[in-house]
Amino acid sequence: MTTTPPTASSGTPATPATTARADGRRPDELRPVRFTRGWLDAAEGSVLVEFGRTRVLCAASFTEGVPRWRRGSGEGWVTAEYAMLPRSTDTRSDRESVRGRIGGRTHEISRLIGRSLRAVVDVKALGENTIVLDCDVLQADGGTRTAAITGAYVTLADAIAWAQASGVVPAGRTVLRDSVAAVSVGIVDGTPVLDLPYVEDVRAETDMNVVVTGDGRFVEVQGTAEQTPFDRTELDRLLDLAVTGTAELTRLQAAALAAPAGPRA
Amino acid sequence: MTTTPPTASSGTPATPATTARADGRRPDELRPVRFTRGWLDAAEGSVLVEFGRTRVLCAASFTEGVPRWRRGSGEGWVTAEYAMLPRSTDTRSDRESVRGRIGGRTHEISRLIGRSLRAVVDVKALGENTIVLDCDVLQADGGTRTAAITGAYVTLADAIAWAQASGVVPAGRTVLRDSVAAVSVGIVDGTPVLDLPYVEDVRAETDMNVVVTGDGRFVEVQGTAEQTPFDRTELDRLLDLAVTGTAELTRLQAAALAAPAGPRA
Amino acid sequence: MTTTPPTASSGTPATPATTARADGRRPDELRPVRFTRGWLDAAEGSVLVEFGRTRVLCAASFTEGVPRWRRGSGEGWVTAEYAMLPRSTDTRSDRESVRGRIGGRTHEISRLIGRSLRAVVDVKALGENTIVLDCDVLQADGGTRTAAITGAYVTLADAIAWAQASGVVPAGRTVLRDSVAAVSVGIVDGTPVLDLPYVEDVRAETDMNVVVTGDGRFVEVQGTAEQTPFDRTELDRLLDLAVTGTAELTRLQAAALAAPAGPRA
Amino acid sequence: MTTTPPTASSGTPATPATTARADGRRPDELRPVRFTRGWLDAAEGSVLVEFGRTRVLCAASFTEGVPRWRRGSGEGWVTAEYAMLPRSTDTRSDRESVRGRIGGRTHEISRLIGRSLRAVVDVKALGENTIVLDCDVLQADGGTRTAAITGAYVTLADAIAWAQASGVVPAGRTVLRDSVAAVSVGIVDGTPVLDLPYVEDVRAETDMNVVVTGDGRFVEVQGTAEQTPFDRTELDRLLDLAVTGTAELTRLQAAALAAPAGPRA
Amino acid sequence: MTTTPPTASSGTPATPATTARADGRRPDELRPVRFTRGWLDAAEGSVLVEFGRTRVLCAASFTEGVPRWRRGSGEGWVTAEYAMLPRSTDTRSDRESVRGRIGGRTHEISRLIGRSLRAVVDVKALGENTIVLDCDVLQADGGTRTAAITGAYVTLADAIAWAQASGVVPAGRTVLRDSVAAVSVGIVDGTPVLDLPYVEDVRAETDMNVVVTGDGRFVEVQGTAEQTPFDRTELDRLLDLAVTGTAELTRLQAAALAAPAGPRA
Amino acid sequence: MTTTPPTASSGTPATPATTARADGRRPDELRPVRFTRGWLDAAEGSVLVEFGRTRVLCAASFTEGVPRWRRGSGEGWVTAEYAMLPRSTDTRSDRESVRGRIGGRTHEISRLIGRSLRAVVDVKALGENTIVLDCDVLQADGGTRTAAITGAYVTLADAIAWAQASGVVPAGRTVLRDSVAAVSVGIVDGTPVLDLPYVEDVRAETDMNVVVTGDGRFVEVQGTAEQTPFDRTELDRLLDLAVTGTAELTRLQAAALAAPAGPRA
Repeated sequence: MTTTPPTASSGTPATPATTARADGRRPDELRPVRFTRGWLDAAEGSVLVEFGRTRVLCAASFTEGVPRWRRGSGEGWVTAEYAMLPRSTDTRSDRESVRGRIGGRTHEISRLIGRSLRAVVDVKALGENTIVLDCDVLQADGGTRTAAITGAYVTLADAIAWAQASGVVPAGRTVLRDSVAAVSVGIVDGTPVLDLPYVEDVRAETDMNVVVTGDGRFVEVQGTAEQTPFDRTELDRLLDLAVTGTAELTRLQAAALAAPAGPRA
Repeated sequence: MTTTPPTASSGTPATPATTARADGRRPDELRPVRFTRGWLDAAEGSVLVEFGRTRVLCAASFTEGVPRWRRGSGEGWVTAEYAMLPRSTDTRSDRESVRGRIGGRTHEISRLIGRSLRAVVDVKALGENTIVLDCDVLQADGGTRTAAITGAYVTLADAIAWAQASGVVPAGRTVLRDSVAAVSVGIVDGTPVLDLPYVEDVRAETDMNVVVTGDGRFVEVQGTAEQTPFDRTELDRLLDLAVTGTAELTRLQAAALAAPAGPRA
Repeated sequence: MTTTPPTASSGTPATPATTARADGRRPDELRPVRFTRGWLDAAEGSVLVEFGRTRVLCAASFTEGVPRWRRGSGEGWVTAEYAMLPRSTDTRSDRESVRGRIGGRTHEISRLIGRSLRAVVDVKALGENTIVLDCDVLQADGGTRTAAITGAYVTLADAIAWAQASGVVPAGRTVLRDSVAAVSVGIVDGTPVLDLPYVEDVRAETDMNVVVTGDGRFVEVQGTAEQTPFDRTELDRLLDLAVTGTAELTRLQAAALAAPAGPRA
Repeated sequence: MTTTPPTASSGTPATPATTARADGRRPDELRPVRFTRGWLDAAEGSVLVEFGRTRVLCAASFTEGVPRWRRGSGEGWVTAEYAMLPRSTDTRSDRESVRGRIGGRTHEISRLIGRSLRAVVDVKALGENTIVLDCDVLQADGGTRTAAITGAYVTLADAIAWAQASGVVPAGRTVLRDSVAAVSVGIVDGTPVLDLPYVEDVRAETDMNVVVTGDGRFVEVQGTAEQTPFDRTELDRLLDLAVTGTAELTRLQAAALAAPAGPRA
Repeated sequence: MTTTPPTASSGTPATPATTARADGRRPDELRPVRFTRGWLDAAEGSVLVEFGRTRVLCAASFTEGVPRWRRGSGEGWVTAEYAMLPRSTDTRSDRESVRGRIGGRTHEISRLIGRSLRAVVDVKALGENTIVLDCDVLQADGGTRTAAITGAYVTLADAIAWAQASGVVPAGRTVLRDSVAAVSVGIVDGTPVLDLPYVEDVRAETDMNVVVTGDGRFVEVQGTAEQTPFDRTELDRLLDLAVTGTAELTRLQAAALAAPAGPRA
Repeated sequence: MTTTPPTASSGTPATPATTARADGRRPDELRPVRFTRGWLDAAEGSVLVEFGRTRVLCAASFTEGVPRWRRGSGEGWVTAEYAMLPRSTDTRSDRESVRGRIGGRTHEISRLIGRSLRAVVDVKALGENTIVLDCDVLQADGGTRTAAITGAYVTLADAIAWAQASGVVPAGRTVLRDSVAAVSVGIVDGTPVLDLPYVEDVRAETDMNVVVTGDGRFVEVQGTAEQTPFDRTELDRLLDLAVTGTAELTRLQAAALAAPAGPRA
């Protein structure tokens, strides 16, 4: 990977935190985030997104036309598929293709990504076109679904730019009403923390994934008490953290998209 | 159904609401809720739970022993499976058994129910025993997953009482640390409302399912912007409504369990 | 279930029998049979049928049009799907949707129900419309397939009445040429008996399911020697019993259909 | 196939019938029946059975041990699998292996063959051993399930003889309590006829498969009204025909087994 | 099988070889090869091909029209499906239909057969018609894929002759550009041998399947080192053997096709 | 990808060729080949291998123990799974996990990779341990299977080095008897060429994949005539090219493995 395509990194300085995290971050600090656009030659949009050691390859496939149930509506369709490579994790998992079926977690995350992106797409402006976002986890170190959503938005923006540059979608339309980003938050040893790597994730008492638009509104809030239920105060502190984290991700997404485009987009 | 088993109903008087809902309820009012315990003769616990016209048959199956990956841990296991009968809905859906695979939504809800119940179970006190909760939707009119969780808790309590009465689980132990109930809330025409039937559900701008313990803490918060993202104020109002609704459900669960037990439990 | 929909029950007095059956019935006596029509709000026809403790929820779904292979024939199609809830039985069975395939017994019974109903339907009079009968066993205590056929007929009649009332099928046509009912018979401890519950079913030397029209002719005769082959005399006595039992079921079906219809039909 | 293994044929002279059948047979006459034993080199028993142009290859596989649920019972297990080659029929059918699942009809027939054979096997005498009978239809011209049962019995007898000759099953035991054969009967143009080829099968008003032991008792009676229900008189005439036909098949089975054994048995 | 259809056998005299093979053949000698054409009544072409004890039933199904992706191309399509009966082998294998999926080996061989036949078909001359070749192994003793290809060619020739005789394909066209045959070769105990039966196959250090046209050119060369890699000299000797063997098979195919046709072709 | 792990590239100078290839290579010239070892943090061995624009991520998973059928043999097991990301290709393909089954091509290539690696592994020296090689194609531009084999060897070597460094496999043993590499060759416009990208692959008359050990012997030779059969002379020229190409790959593999190891190995 010597001739790396244009990349935007989070330059947040690593200020020492009072509460020690495994990687020395402050409780409200993201891991280093990087977007490598144009990672694939053929896709209408593609990005290798990294949240620390978590690496997700997002690819957008643009096709004219929509599924049958949507034909004639004048509206487009955006959907997503999430999957993990068998050795993206510490110990190898069986392939879902070999087992012959998609597991519950995979289904759930694919649906979450699709809903999150549709929240910012004007399907009328997209016209009767379909964009499929494939989010394949190459390496998993916590937060794969939030990295996938955050990277998929960048990929989606590139695919729409491609479609407008190609004339498939009229150039003047605003297809994306806003940006969207996601981050995980959780309570670890009683402390609310942002963007949990795997070692924190397994120890978290509460785990929450929050999807937020560029203007700071919520698209999805999914909080789960892994061990002990959480009260309203804790919930509020987690939401505060998530809003802070997604605001930073929104900034990084914009910076990545402002850089010169990769090979194809 | 002439010799109906013991039943607990919500007697909330139907005060006319200022904001008109399809069924005349106030925004913060539950639908009539009913628990018919002992609906099945053979199950270790069973309840037909009704939230208005939504009817879910919950059955608990208690077996000694745990799945292989848990053997020797001294801990029990509680899991759930959710499904809908093909004609529980307005138009018939294909059976998942005929299609040969479980859909994403089914997986997601089954996992949610299992997590919600495990949040109040002391698996050490349960010992190496397994309880499977089957939640089959006989009629769907919105809120099937929240009705399922709320009913499954009653069923689980009956199954544990049965196990302790039978001596399979030592009588003195407190297996259930608390109760758990769930309700849906959403924003319909700009108004936050509690316990949405299908007609409101399809029109809701935001839809949230909240799982709360008897002492008022959160187990799961799952909010989704169906059309437009929601802001922090709206989120807070929805959480308030959910806490009110689950408190009432907690009271109804306790009343149902305080009534004489059904045929078997 | 306080406000039960219109119901027709068999009022056969429980005369003590000389040959002791587990539940005190005479060898030629049916279990209490009950039809609760309109159990579902949305289905074009629905009935909760009970043969003693066996409870099957039958739902008819009417749709205009027929499968592709039948288009243009001017003829309708009637089919059925049978399934058991996992905890309808004494010990829990795995869901066929989870196992990813339909078992042989399920296929076989679904096909039997469909054939039995088609035997009394004039598909020309039905026109190019499809009726699917879903028969879901909520509680199983022997005779689930015969209860399903007997209940499905009532459901089918309601669905056809609905279609004619709605004008989808012309009102003057006689779509049902006759009624159809089914019962199990068997030889238990050397005695031919009618309508076997589970405890008798497992001990039966011979087990036979007989499907008979309202005018007393046979649609299906399925006899199986479970342990020892049976001779012609035994076969004749079983057929006699079956004809007696189905005649009584025909009377009960007519009574149920004569009562005021449930919520929708 | 020049060096054909020992064969037993039905030598029934083709007396012209009053009611014309497509192939000139009398209503109570079987098609030419042939058993070619030892058709496979490796199987513990094998026969190519032909009922006219219907050809089924039956193979018995004997293995020591039984399925887990039967271990320690001291009893053996006999089961069967039926399948059709894709071009055994006039027009090609898709393979069930390619479609990824077994169809309902295949399941139903496999179960019927297994039950029919188990009716004449003394599983105690067999000991904890398993025999699987594979019945693969190479060419189908009606009556494939009855040919399969009739051939499978011969194959089973060879496999048991092999097991006793090998000492795996003690030689003195009577494992087979009787023989078993099956035939189809039906009403075609108002006339009850025996052993229907495909052209008669599709026109039959009623179709019945009857499985009968060597001593003339019934193991299975499966009658289906394809078009119009049948009355008791018709049922009696069909049963008479079936008893006549299976008696002749019993004689032919015995003759085939009395001939010198094929290559392996 | 008394009235055997026209058959062509290899009459190669069994000269004793210096290197002892299990069946006494010389290293460069084929097993007795036999083609029984017209084995099925309905198929447009069918042959039972035997390479020693290996028996494969090949059936050609001709249908007008092509798969959707080929419509309008003016070109036909030829494909193949290979399968083994469960007891074709020494010990029984589970059916792929029961396991619910096709194994890798089955897929691989089906694809090989299809490619081999397409290499000699002029798809333009075939027109928009489809021929499916089903190759079902009734008995397996090594070389099933090469027997299948060799037999499938004869079957394909019969099906094309049938199509031209029926006028579905214009009679004057040359649809088959050449014939095609296949044979296995391998190195056993250091000696290159032709047409390996099972006992040699399992001991071979190298195993190669070669598909050759009538004019001696290669369609497929698939060599695999089972134990130790092979060098160029060994590869050359194996290719020499294969060319010799397929030349003999080409002669036998021509002889079989020159004999009077079977029942249908 | 700023801190790229140690990498070995082919520095072959791009001499202009007389026969024009799309990318200006000589007929006997490889595309730029690069191995990035240690691409994954957790895998016991991992490499991102690139043959031009073809990128395959190979990961080795080492586990103690072997599959049941191999237990007690004292021998290890090496197997492989190949898959393509949905958007690795020009147009998106459906996921095999979503379709619910592995396609024939995927099976075939997975089996080929496994066999190729086992040819150089001394399974006795490996002991009862299992190594699974996952080869996931991130971007496909022809030659994915040969890149996968070539990269998987490097990954396997790293995994074995890891196992010996960890003491799981005794350090003194020679587990790898040789190296193994693979390349595609084909005839394009009558010219034999080495290492075909997609644009050449689709136009090739003949396509061959050759797997060769470090000492120049063959493990697999798979040649297929895509359009016209090939003769012995063409076959010989293709084999010559393949031997040249794999010798160069062997050199590059050795150079990559001689460089300092990546993060984990």
